Parts: sequence; structure tokens; C-alpha cells
Amino acid sequence: MPSRNATAAIIGAGDFIGGAIAERFAREGYTVFAGRRSAEKLPALVQTIEKAGGRCIGRALDARKEDDITAFLEEADKTAPLEVCVFNPGANVNFPVLDTTERVFRKVWEMACYGGFLTGREAARRMLPHGKGTILFTGATASLRGGKGYAAFASAKFGLRAVAQSMARELGPQNIHVAHLIIDAGVDTAFVRDRIRQRGGDEAVAKIQPDQLMNPQSVANAYWQLHEQTRDGWTFELDLRPYGETW
Amino acid sequence: MPSRNATAAIIGAGDFIGGAIAERFAREGYTVFAGRRSAEKLPALVQTIEKAGGRCIGRALDARKEDDITAFLEEADKTAPLEVCVFNPGANVNFPVLDTTERVFRKVWEMACYGGFLTGREAARRMLPHGKGTILFTGATASLRGGKGYAAFASAKFGLRAVAQSMARELGPQNIHVAHLIIDAGVDTAFVRDRIRQRGGDEAVAKIQPDQLMNPQSVANAYWQLHEQTRDGWTFELDLRPYGETW
Amino acid sequence: MPSRNATAAIIGAGDFIGGAIAERFAREGYTVFAGRRSAEKLPALVQTIEKAGGRCIGRALDARKEDDITAFLEEADKTAPLEVCVFNPGANVNFPVLDTTERVFRKVWEMACYGGFLTGREAARRMLPHGKGTILFTGATASLRGGKGYAAFASAKFGLRAVAQSMARELGPQNIHVAHLIIDAGVDTAFVRDRIRQRGGDEAVAKIQPDQLMNPQSVANAYWQLHEQTRDGWTFELDLRPYGETW
Amino acid sequence: MPSRNATAAIIGAGDFIGGAIAERFAREGYTVFAGRRSAEKLPALVQTIEKAGGRCIGRALDARKEDDITAFLEEADKTAPLEVCVFNPGANVNFPVLDTTERVFRKVWEMACYGGFLTGREAARRMLPHGKGTILFTGATASLRGGKGYAAFASAKFGLRAVAQSMARELGPQNIHVAHLIIDAGVDTAFVRDRIRQRGGDEAVAKIQPDQLMNPQSVANAYWQLHEQTRDGWTFELDLRPYGETW
Repeated sequence: MPSRNATAAIIGAGDFIGGAIAERFAREGYTVFAGRRSAEKLPALVQTIEKAGGRCIGRALDARKEDDITAFLEEADKTAPLEVCVFNPGANVNFPVLDTTERVFRKVWEMACYGGFLTGREAARRMLPHGKGTILFTGATASLRGGKGYAAFASAKFGLRAVAQSMARELGPQNIHVAHLIIDAGVDTAFVRDRIRQRGGDEAVAKIQPDQLMNPQSVANAYWQLHEQTRDGWTFELDLRPYGETW
Repeated sequence: MPSRNATAAIIGAGDFIGGAIAERFAREGYTVFAGRRSAEKLPALVQTIEKAGGRCIGRALDARKEDDITAFLEEADKTAPLEVCVFNPGANVNFPVLDTTERVFRKVWEMACYGGFLTGREAARRMLPHGKGTILFTGATASLRGGKGYAAFASAKFGLRAVAQSMARELGPQNIHVAHLIIDAGVDTAFVRDRIRQRGGDEAVAKIQPDQLMNPQSVANAYWQLHEQTRDGWTFELDLRPYGETW
Repeated sequence: MPSRNATAAIIGAGDFIGGAIAERFAREGYTVFAGRRSAEKLPALVQTIEKAGGRCIGRALDARKEDDITAFLEEADKTAPLEVCVFNPGANVNFPVLDTTERVFRKVWEMACYGGFLTGREAARRMLPHGKGTILFTGATASLRGGKGYAAFASAKFGLRAVAQSMARELGPQNIHVAHLIIDAGVDTAFVRDRIRQRGGDEAVAKIQPDQLMNPQSVANAYWQLHEQTRDGWTFELDLRPYGETW
Repeated sequence: MPSRNATAAIIGAGDFIGGAIAERFAREGYTVFAGRRSAEKLPALVQTIEKAGGRCIGRALDARKEDDITAFLEEADKTAPLEVCVFNPGANVNFPVLDTTERVFRKVWEMACYGGFLTGREAARRMLPHGKGTILFTGATASLRGGKGYAAFASAKFGLRAVAQSMARELGPQNIHVAHLIIDAGVDTAFVRDRIRQRGGDEAVAKIQPDQLMNPQSVANAYWQLHEQTRDGWTFELDLRPYGETW
């Protein structure tokens, strides 16, 4: 395993793809700062990474709090130059618009959009003095389409995409690569399998075909490849979905 | 002038196009409820409309406050069935993303996106019992493009567009017409002419060609035409710009 | 009925919306030139328009032939200044891409895209000396989405949309209004009702709800309203679908 | 260098990125079939690849001819299973729409769109019996925007994108990965440097900054990475531009 004097910070280092992204960058020699709301789930990720020979510091944080984001990225950048920052919190909810409370609408936005703005701005502030960096935002189907029941979630994801676009246009010429990934399908996690079980029973889970759901590691790979792009040919946006997905 | 037992509520009945929209719907016989932050500017609008034989009630409100929106639309609907609701507050700011404070980012979102969600939801709640209605959202160039300096504004306008899409998909089958207008250029107002004067002097203002800027009444006309569409052929989105505009 | 010294040319004046567009512009006083492939269906349209007090000249033409387009628009412009031109031929086919012959792919493109380029260019050549004009292109769901089985049709409709965009950007500043309408649902015609009958029997036809299908006249109305826009606020693109449509 | 019993066919193996893509897949062990119109330029590419230890067969072909495409891909597939096919012919022209002849419009479409349809279909026909394959289409800025002077080119590139979308949706579930790359800037080639010289002299060429233009090898790398994606997470579309590009 290579070792680098650089940190990669993951905000939303959760059970879906955030953890896999953390593992992937750790495997490439980065000291990973893994942030998420549920502190109790961090030790397992840290152990997995350390067991594989990597370095990972876990920190509980609330992506909706400017102080949390700032402190987290500052600590990462103090440890070693912040080179990669991934914004990946989930906030997927589905309510008819008439049943969407102002509290839900605001909370989803704070988690999925406002937190992304804070993260991107604070990461850029630390990367610019180093003269380089990569900032990656996780998008979703709802980043491009406001479907039924998605007024809150799509609004936040549309908003995050705009932040990513503005940042890419402003920071690209300053050697900061900003990209946005449209994750357009379900990822293979315990949570998703449980949901399939709830709907269709054990039979439905048994029927899941190989590669029907995205492996978090495949998704993490796309984040890594974007980071590896040379600056003469940067991608701002790409989509990801399994081969059998209807879209 | 026709007279209707129906109200049209304009949130953001301001100097740009909001006032012209209010006048247009008043001219068509609607009792117009005109809401905006600056109470002191409402009497002029009310007078203009009344002088032309229309009815207009002006109310100061803060589109970021659920109670204000609810009270405003409730009063309108109590006066006569709420048939039209336009969400039109401006919130255009331009800051480099690194100079965008969390306060600005949040405020712009509250005005341009969150307020739109509240308005749409509250309007729909009142229209559904009547079995019909039209909800119109004002978009901008920044609804489709996150340009340099527009992290906050584009994020809010992208988010508003998602709200409009979700609402259109949910409420269309319930006979509520939801549409989103992309206003892709400057409107001819005192403010815009002043800005041109500041940049290029009186000479620049003198050089403004006829129809180079959009007449607020032309824009208001598009809102009216959307409302007039029969439900077998509804438009969700259209763009508007002057003939000479580069886009 | 008003009378104007101006012509409106409809290429693709067919049974769906083309005929309704012809009737609409005739009703507004334009001398309508109605062109379509099947000459035998033109007299009925001409009679309908004349009976209503309008003027209509029907001409058989093949929109894939430069000479046909040129002669048709030249005759219209000789009769009275060409002020409106609508490109509306249908070419909707659905084949799996592997079963799409090169002949079908080419023919669909010639009808739906190449013919649109010829029409737009020849209309503009005649309108520019008059200093004004409106050119309207009919788009479809497939103008924005390449779905399964639509390689040929979507490719042609995407291509037509690009032609419309380029023309709008080039000709707008010369006072030619170019617009593109996304017709995103079925129109209420004998053909569509027959197809529904074939699939679901008389019962299915009986179950068609009011306003479930678009009335051709409602669609034609949108064409008219675009033409009526003042040049300080032109729309390039709008979509149209019935209130109950899933999209 | 690995050796594979598989072929990669490049249609449009030209001086810009096509040659670099050929080299890249050759380096990964594929027997490369390089097709382009100008036969006299093929030996240089073949030699470069062979010198590096790779295998390359050059064939002159006209991407507008069904027989040429079919024979080329058939020969490739006979040599070893066709696993990768890249459609990359250039056809960039800029003419005001009024100066665009029907001949130019048709020719550009035949090269950039119709040839892509033929290539995709014929590649799929050969890949499906093998149960897998990757088909990659080269797009451009004009794939998404019909700018001034681009009626012909944008129309063809829009059309190609639709073909790619339809094919991706149809063939994905059959394990054929179809993707579309938006090359949104100039590539560093002798041709582009000459054009810069013509406009700004030697001085302008001397001022070209490192990474201001895309290195063809960086672009080729993106094609390779798309091919390497596992099928549980395929990208349909990504964009590529240099870090300093305005977009």
C-alpha cells in the first residue's frame, strides 16, 4: 500500500457508498477522515481500514453545522494537506408535497444541499493554498428529475448540483477539480436488501440477480478514477447505474 | 373589465414583473392579493390597479415565514376562491463561492426556494377543495445553469425548479396546473436602467434599443397565457428572452 | 374574421395537429399554404377552412425534397409575404435498433430533421427581406429522450431540435422568431382512438376521459400564442401535455 | 503488455483522439482495427502501435457506407471476438444556417450520425452472440447545444447522442455497455496548434499553457476507464474538458 502525506475527507462516510469510498482512498495511501452523524458506527469502518493497513480517523459530525464541517476539515488539513473531499450524506425521503412539513423540507435541504455548500467552500479554502485538490459531490436520480413525492429531496439535490456547477466553474482554473456523480440506482447494502425483503419477502431477495444492484466498491471506484484524471481532461459529471436498470 | 369571484395571489409583487403580473390578472377580473416585503411600495400598485378599475389588496409579508404565507393565502381564499398563485420573489445575488457566507446562502434559499415550496403547498391546499387552480413559479437563467458567482442563487433556483416539477407531477392529475417560467434576460425596470447607467453612463442608457429589454407586461402576458391553457394541453416550462439576446 | 396580406405555410398539414394549425392561422386572417404528402386529403382541409371564411391553398409536397420545399414557400411568399412557417411532419416509428434498417433510419431523418432544416432555411430566406417572421418546429417526447425502440425517431427529433436552436440563436437578432414545441403526449385523433381500440377494444375507447388526450385545437392555440409574442419576450421552447399525463 | 483474444475497432482512428484511443487499447492487449477515410495516414499509426509491441490492422473506410462498416467490423470479429467499438469520426463545420447547403447538411449527418447508427448496430450484432461488449460514441459541445453556425454539426451530434441513448437502454440489459463522451474543448494536436498560429501567430502558440489543451492520451484514458467499468455500475455519459476551460 502506498503512503501519502495527504488527507481525504469523507462527509457522510455511511453504510452505503461513503464507507467504500473511505476504504478506497485509504487503500491508495490517503489518511482518511471519515465523518458521519452516527458516531457509534465509525469504529467498525476505522477497524476495517486499519486492518487492511490503512489510516482512518472517524469523527461524529453534523453536516448541517458550519462549525462541525470547519473543524473536521481543519483537523484533516492539519494532519496532512487536504487533497480530496467527498460530500456524500444521504437524505432521501419521499412524501407527497402536501404532507411535506416545513421541518422536513428544511432538514433535507440542510443535510443534502446546505451541508454540501459548506463542505465545498471549506474544502476549497484549505486546498487553494496547496494549489490543488479534488471535491466530489454525490448526486442521485433526483438531481435531474423532480418526481412525485420528491419535492424535498429533489429540491435539495438539484440545489447541490448547482453548487457543484458553480464551484467547478470558479475553482477549475485554480486547479481544484470539482465533480458531481449521478448515482442513478440502488446500491447493494443491507438496508436495500431489507427493503426488498419487506416488499417481496425472502423470495424477492433470493431472486436478486448478480450485478442487479451496484456494489459500493464499484461506485467508490468511479470516485477514485475522477480524482486520478489529469487536469487537461477533467469530468464534471457522470452517471452510474447497473447494466439492467431501466432509465 | 370582467369580474370574477376568484382571487389571484402574487407573492413577490415587486417592481420587476410581479407588479405587472398583478395588474394583468386584475385586468382580467381577479381580485388580486399582492404580497411583498416592502409594505411602503404596495399602495402605489394598489392605486394603479384600482384606477384601472380593478381590485387589489396589498399585504406586507415575508415569503420565508410559513405563517405569513399561510395567512396571506388564507385571506385571499376567504375573500373569493383562490384560483391563481404566482411565486415571484427576487433573490439574485452574485458572490464568489468562497465569499458566500452561510447566512447569505441560507437567506437566498429561504427567499427563492423554501418560500416557493411553502407557497406552492399552501396554494394547493386551498385550490384542491375547489377542484382547480394554477400555480406559477418564476425561474431564471440560473434555474438551469450554475455559473460563476451564482452558487447561492443558482442553488436556490435549481431547487425551486425541482419543487415545481414535483408539484406539477403530483397535482396535475388533480387539475392543478403548475408551471415554471425561465426568465432568461433583463426586464426593463428603473433598477435595470440604473445599473446600466452605473456601468456605462447616460450614453449607455440612451443606446438601449427598443425591445432590447423585456417589458414587464410582455412577461406578465406569458403568465396569463399559461393560466388560460385548457387542461388537455398544459405547459410545464417555457423560456422568455428578448429577440436580440445572446444565449 | 380579420384579413391579412400575409401567408402562413404549414409543412405537414396532416390529420393530427397540422390541420388544426392551418385552421387556426386561417381564422386569424392568414392565407394558409397547407402542404403534405397525401394530396388526396388536402381538399377536405381546404373546404373546412373556406367554409369558415378563410383562405387555404393545398399543395402535395415531399418535405424531403429541397425543390418541393423551395417551390412551396416561394409560391406562398409570392402570394403574400410569408410571415409564419410551421414544420410539422410526423415520422414516428418504433423498432429495436437491431431491426432498424439503414433505409428506415435515413427516411425518418429525412422527413423529421432534414426536411426541417430545408424548411427553416428557405422560410428564413424569404422572411429576412420582409424584416420579420415566425418559424415553428414541432417536437416530441423523443426530442429530449432516446428511449427503447426510438433510435431512428429520437435521433431525427434530437437533430431537429438542434436545428431549431441554431436557427433561433442566429435569426432572433434579425427579428425572426424561431421556436420548438415539445408535444409530450397523444393527440385526440381518429388514428389514436383506433390504436386504443385495437389494444383495448371499444370498452377502452369508451373509457377515454375528457381531456385525457390533447385536442388538436388546444395544441394549435399554443402555436398561435407563440406567434403572437412580442419580440421583447420570445419563447424558444415549451412543452405540452394533458393534465393527467404521467411524465 | 497483456495479450487478449479480442478486438477493438476504432472508426475514425484519426489524428485527434482516434489514434490515441487505438494506441491505448492496443497497449491493453487488444488487436486494434483502425478505420479512417484517409488510407495514407494509417501506416504511421500501425507502425507506432507495432513498435510499442501491439497489434493493429488499418483499413480505409467510409463511415457513411453500410458495406464498409459491416465489412470492417466483420473482419475484426473474425480475427478475434469484437469486444470494443469506438465511433469517433470528426465532422465539425461552421456555417451560418442560410449558407448551409443541403449537401453539407446531409454529409455532416452521414458522417457524424448515420455512420454512428450503422457502427453501433453492426457492432451490437457481433457482440451479442459473445454475450458482452462496449460501444463508445464521441460527442462534443455541440451534442448538447445548437450554437450559432452549428445547425449542421449540432444536428448530427444531437442525433448521435439519441442513437447512443436508445442503444444504451436497449442493449444494457443484454450486457452491452453503450456510452457517450462529451469532448467539450480543443484537443492538443498539430491541427489545433496550426489554427491557433493562424489566428495569433507563433506568439499565440508559445503562450499555450501546459494542460490548456487536452492531451489525446488523457481523452483516450477516459474511453479505457469506461470500458473497464464493471457492469453493476456503468456510466452512460461523461464530459471532459481542461481545468482552465470556460464552460
